[in-house]
Amino acid sequence: MNTFGRAFRVTTFGESHGAGLGAVVDGCPAGLKLGEADVQQELDRRRPGQSALTTARPERDRAEILSGVFEGKTTGAPIAILVRNEDADPSAYEAIRDLPRPGHADYVYQAKYGHRDYRGGGRSSGRETLGRVAAGAIAKKLIGQHGIGVYAHTIAIGAVTAGPATMDDIVANPCKNPVRTADLSSVAAMSEAIGKARSEGDSIGGAVEIVATGLPVGLGSPVFGKLDADVAGALMGIGGVKAVEIGAGTRSALLKGSEMNDEPVLEGGQVRARTNHCGGILGGISTGMPLVCRISVKPTPSIAKQQRTVDIARMEEAVIAIKGRHDPSIVPRVVPVAEAMVALVIADHMIMAGKICPDRI
Amino acid sequence: MNTFGRAFRVTTFGESHGAGLGAVVDGCPAGLKLGEADVQQELDRRRPGQSALTTARPERDRAEILSGVFEGKTTGAPIAILVRNEDADPSAYEAIRDLPRPGHADYVYQAKYGHRDYRGGGRSSGRETLGRVAAGAIAKKLIGQHGIGVYAHTIAIGAVTAGPATMDDIVANPCKNPVRTADLSSVAAMSEAIGKARSEGDSIGGAVEIVATGLPVGLGSPVFGKLDADVAGALMGIGGVKAVEIGAGTRSALLKGSEMNDEPVLEGGQVRARTNHCGGILGGISTGMPLVCRISVKPTPSIAKQQRTVDIARMEEAVIAIKGRHDPSIVPRVVPVAEAMVALVIADHMIMAGKICPDRI
Amino acid sequence: MNTFGRAFRVTTFGESHGAGLGAVVDGCPAGLKLGEADVQQELDRRRPGQSALTTARPERDRAEILSGVFEGKTTGAPIAILVRNEDADPSAYEAIRDLPRPGHADYVYQAKYGHRDYRGGGRSSGRETLGRVAAGAIAKKLIGQHGIGVYAHTIAIGAVTAGPATMDDIVANPCKNPVRTADLSSVAAMSEAIGKARSEGDSIGGAVEIVATGLPVGLGSPVFGKLDADVAGALMGIGGVKAVEIGAGTRSALLKGSEMNDEPVLEGGQVRARTNHCGGILGGISTGMPLVCRISVKPTPSIAKQQRTVDIARMEEAVIAIKGRHDPSIVPRVVPVAEAMVALVIADHMIMAGKICPDRI
Amino acid sequence: MNTFGRAFRVTTFGESHGAGLGAVVDGCPAGLKLGEADVQQELDRRRPGQSALTTARPERDRAEILSGVFEGKTTGAPIAILVRNEDADPSAYEAIRDLPRPGHADYVYQAKYGHRDYRGGGRSSGRETLGRVAAGAIAKKLIGQHGIGVYAHTIAIGAVTAGPATMDDIVANPCKNPVRTADLSSVAAMSEAIGKARSEGDSIGGAVEIVATGLPVGLGSPVFGKLDADVAGALMGIGGVKAVEIGAGTRSALLKGSEMNDEPVLEGGQVRARTNHCGGILGGISTGMPLVCRISVKPTPSIAKQQRTVDIARMEEAVIAIKGRHDPSIVPRVVPVAEAMVALVIADHMIMAGKICPDRI
Repeated sequence: MNTFGRAFRVTTFGESHGAGLGAVVDGCPAGLKLGEADVQQELDRRRPGQSALTTARPERDRAEILSGVFEGKTTGAPIAILVRNEDADPSAYEAIRDLPRPGHADYVYQAKYGHRDYRGGGRSSGRETLGRVAAGAIAKKLIGQHGIGVYAHTIAIGAVTAGPATMDDIVANPCKNPVRTADLSSVAAMSEAIGKARSEGDSIGGAVEIVATGLPVGLGSPVFGKLDADVAGALMGIGGVKAVEIGAGTRSALLKGSEMNDEPVLEGGQVRARTNHCGGILGGISTGMPLVCRISVKPTPSIAKQQRTVDIARMEEAVIAIKGRHDPSIVPRVVPVAEAMVALVIADHMIMAGKICPDRI
Repeated sequence: MNTFGRAFRVTTFGESHGAGLGAVVDGCPAGLKLGEADVQQELDRRRPGQSALTTARPERDRAEILSGVFEGKTTGAPIAILVRNEDADPSAYEAIRDLPRPGHADYVYQAKYGHRDYRGGGRSSGRETLGRVAAGAIAKKLIGQHGIGVYAHTIAIGAVTAGPATMDDIVANPCKNPVRTADLSSVAAMSEAIGKARSEGDSIGGAVEIVATGLPVGLGSPVFGKLDADVAGALMGIGGVKAVEIGAGTRSALLKGSEMNDEPVLEGGQVRARTNHCGGILGGISTGMPLVCRISVKPTPSIAKQQRTVDIARMEEAVIAIKGRHDPSIVPRVVPVAEAMVALVIADHMIMAGKICPDRI
Repeated sequence: MNTFGRAFRVTTFGESHGAGLGAVVDGCPAGLKLGEADVQQELDRRRPGQSALTTARPERDRAEILSGVFEGKTTGAPIAILVRNEDADPSAYEAIRDLPRPGHADYVYQAKYGHRDYRGGGRSSGRETLGRVAAGAIAKKLIGQHGIGVYAHTIAIGAVTAGPATMDDIVANPCKNPVRTADLSSVAAMSEAIGKARSEGDSIGGAVEIVATGLPVGLGSPVFGKLDADVAGALMGIGGVKAVEIGAGTRSALLKGSEMNDEPVLEGGQVRARTNHCGGILGGISTGMPLVCRISVKPTPSIAKQQRTVDIARMEEAVIAIKGRHDPSIVPRVVPVAEAMVALVIADHMIMAGKICPDRI
Repeated sequence: MNTFGRAFRVTTFGESHGAGLGAVVDGCPAGLKLGEADVQQELDRRRPGQSALTTARPERDRAEILSGVFEGKTTGAPIAILVRNEDADPSAYEAIRDLPRPGHADYVYQAKYGHRDYRGGGRSSGRETLGRVAAGAIAKKLIGQHGIGVYAHTIAIGAVTAGPATMDDIVANPCKNPVRTADLSSVAAMSEAIGKARSEGDSIGGAVEIVATGLPVGLGSPVFGKLDADVAGALMGIGGVKAVEIGAGTRSALLKGSEMNDEPVLEGGQVRARTNHCGGILGGISTGMPLVCRISVKPTPSIAKQQRTVDIARMEEAVIAIKGRHDPSIVPRVVPVAEAMVALVIADHMIMAGKICPDRI
């Protein structure tokens, strides 16, 4: 299952150290202005080496649109996007071919398929998200035409939590700092927490909030195509995510009905809600208030510290210490992926609810 | 979208106060022993009025199998199950037809469809889960043949959290107490918390844990059909659920990689893990360790306390006080529904991974 | 796979001699006026015993709408329809439990599922089409609101072929005669051909044409959701159908391009075509001209004549003579089923192309 | 809808004169030996210019496998295949941008999408089948491991029909002659018919038979996933196909039940059939006898003869004469495409019926 979505469908392909990675987007209406720059811009946000301290390496992860766009506009045909792998050096992985890395999918892949591309995690590499982000770029552009924006930002790195942020902060600030937080006053502490984990040969988790604004009332289906169910599936499907919350989330368990319920109110002749504890979804359907969700991201499993494992060729216990550059926290890099996944869900539901015409914008 | 699953598919139908509710299960292999009693047993667990203080009313919610079973065994044909509504009295709802209840889907349904069955919430009623539980009963029986068990239990009612429970407690205890907890020492405090909310004309949330044992290695797909993504979508799709966690869940954000990673270990010639912080899933694929997940359930939105709302016929602000019997906490009743949803996901993945033959057991 | 369609989805269930048969229609927009009479009217057309010579038995095959309709209008929720089996007498089938009837699915079912409801063909009975016709009634009503009509008529019984018929004949005449032909001058010869087959203990095949009028330009997808591919799949999926033709059909093989091509022409400011050899579809997409297709239907496999078969319990050769009333030609009864299937495909594509809003009409 | 299949899924992309075309195959089990040569071999069969009279141009249509294969074997990950367009010269199409070619999809695309890649038909070009044939090559290799072969051959060009052919002829002969017929004695007459059409500035249709051998009993679903329905949809979805027949096909309409029915017989302890009028499918399920189907292919719509059309920019009637090289009959080139589509359907059903394990061979 490498296809996501019902009406706006994305199929991703590719491995970390193969010829390339990419996506085919099927179901994008004709007439949307689209160029490689639109896709590249989003890919650049998820690229490694973005912090002020590292080289920008602008030549990496170049997206080529192979189909579906003509004279600068989509045609309704599938949009295939290809990103070639460039400096893939798989030799480092040869040594750990039979040593499943703790916290990685190495062993389950081997057990499931009997044969795997072990180089850099192969298909289970974080590089697979290139295809999602590329497709998400198209989704964001499409729903942007209907006034919908999707914005993610880091709200915690380990125990360091971001302070409150206005919607303006959430829109403007994450791209200005390497941890991708909206609360600029937390940047230093978050960076320090990441640096500390790295210096210990360890890694650290965190949390990301995603807010979507401008949604109409009525996205989502009552029973099995609920908007929140689809968002939860989309976000839990990002590598490293271990929890998804909508609105009040886990805190809902502690509340009374009189505290949790959002009372309807009239605003400018429209039914809105006094509060938004439901996170913009009731009964699986968007309320017209902002969609608010949060994800908890586990620490990067690749760490320099020595760990115990099993040599699955010899079937004996072994130790492993993972070499090479690895982000000590993937949280900042999850930010654009989470945005992409939520944008894909919304684009899908906009079409399914008849708010976007499937054939042409 | 009223169909769930890819290989083991469930379509539910019905409204709270219509002729009846039910499900059609498509994709169950032939040869599984199945009778109405199997389904009834699960339906009885989700029926209202189960506490020691109330009448058992065993005549309610009778399941009829309409098709797909012959001589006591499934035939591979779709299994349709019907539960007739009996004492449905919709008159109480007439008065609030135009007054969307805070925290309910009333307004979004009206806005989406323009026409709704407002009686008891219609399709968005908790009674819709009858179809899911009936289908889940079949899924549980099917995967049970392969040694897989799915067990849910209440782990929190408001701020009252259950103490630790062994797997034996989780299997045996929930059916013995009305709050459906595995930790019998918490029953009193949980019941008291519910009683207090009711006496205040209010309601209260809580949390449920679901554990599945006996899963083989290799369920789930690497990218978009991840087992955790499907579990998250399934659970978030239950009415009232606002958060889903797998394994360490939200706590993952606080951990270091060296704390989070589960180190592989040899046990009896099998690769297992020293710990199970990942909740039995890595890279979207089952590890063979127990699948562990948790959901946070919001307080019942129907409360006796007066709330503000909007009269959507007159488009003016109004007040509402919801009459009738309403569970002050739906948490205990979510327990069998959560079990059903997880069982459906597992049955689906068992077939998709070729562990259960799609045609005949 | 008992579900048909992508946006307008039908799931059928039930066996010939079980408790009942029916369908769940998911994806019908809210606000469509619908009552049991709408469904009953179509079911009556496919009921046996319709000829002037037989009793009308109006009490048979009563449709009950279980859900999805409120105050006479659809709500957007799934519409479940149930038809109870009444005078099912399975005793006649006991004797041939192990004797697969030639031309029937008995043997392949047994081989596939290992266990089958052999009574009257079980799931493979023609009675399964009750669910399709019920669902088709809803589809016809839905697309009828957009000026689309679907009309089927018998064009051949064995070697007796109908003469030319106008569109008015096709609309008005089939319901007036038991062979369901639009050319009333063929009724006698067709009836005679059927009668002759019956008197010989044999059966006879034939052909049906289906015409859909009022289609907009633009239904269908260019590559894999082609309108003609979907129509072909839908019609070939009717029991007994062995060929599907669109427009010029098999005759296309004999034509030159200059004969086959339909030249575009302006009519009242609209682009139409001078001819319609393509049958209203080019490149998989509707042209706005009538959709014209034909199916060839094999003779009823149940015949009184003695046939050879294999006793699959004893694994030895045997003979079989099938008793009971069997239509010597199913062609007239395929007419409403073919209409239903084409209507389902069109309803599906109308929603997928954004011509019908998925949420509310 | 650019994805085909349920368990073995193919998504194609690309346009005639864009950057390239290709396919992503999702659902191929791990462990299948696969190289670019396997794909190339099939692509070479559909390439233009194959007749003895034309240059072989071996440099054209080179397939690159971008993902899903590692160390010469599939990994279970999606297999992306890319074929770059090389000598695409779109300038010839500029002149007819607003002149829809009779028999082509030009006008319906324009009407549906409002914006189209008109160069060489864009997405509706026959070059789109490159992706299908590439994917079909993988399907053929996969089912070949289970002893299943799929063989197509030309049985008619216009009124010239092939004589009878043995299974050996069908397997061996089509690749030996440019019309792709199994009956070598018809090659001259068929070639002459094509040549005559070309010399008249016209084109000619024909028919193709597809035979699949080695199928197990039990592929296909009883109601909506019937093997014949899926085959019909797959074949009717090939550009230019106007009729699909299974087994006796249109001739079924003329037969008596006693002629049509295939009597079961014991052969070597297996249930087989004395005849195969059903074409290897009963009740939608494979019988274990060869699957036999036929398609009728319309004449190439692009002809040199002058035709009438409408200038859709000026909305006035116009004339068109189509220049450039166009095959006067696409029938020979449909042969490998038809094989590919049937192979895809069979691979899909083999997995869905549990005959091929979805994870690893």
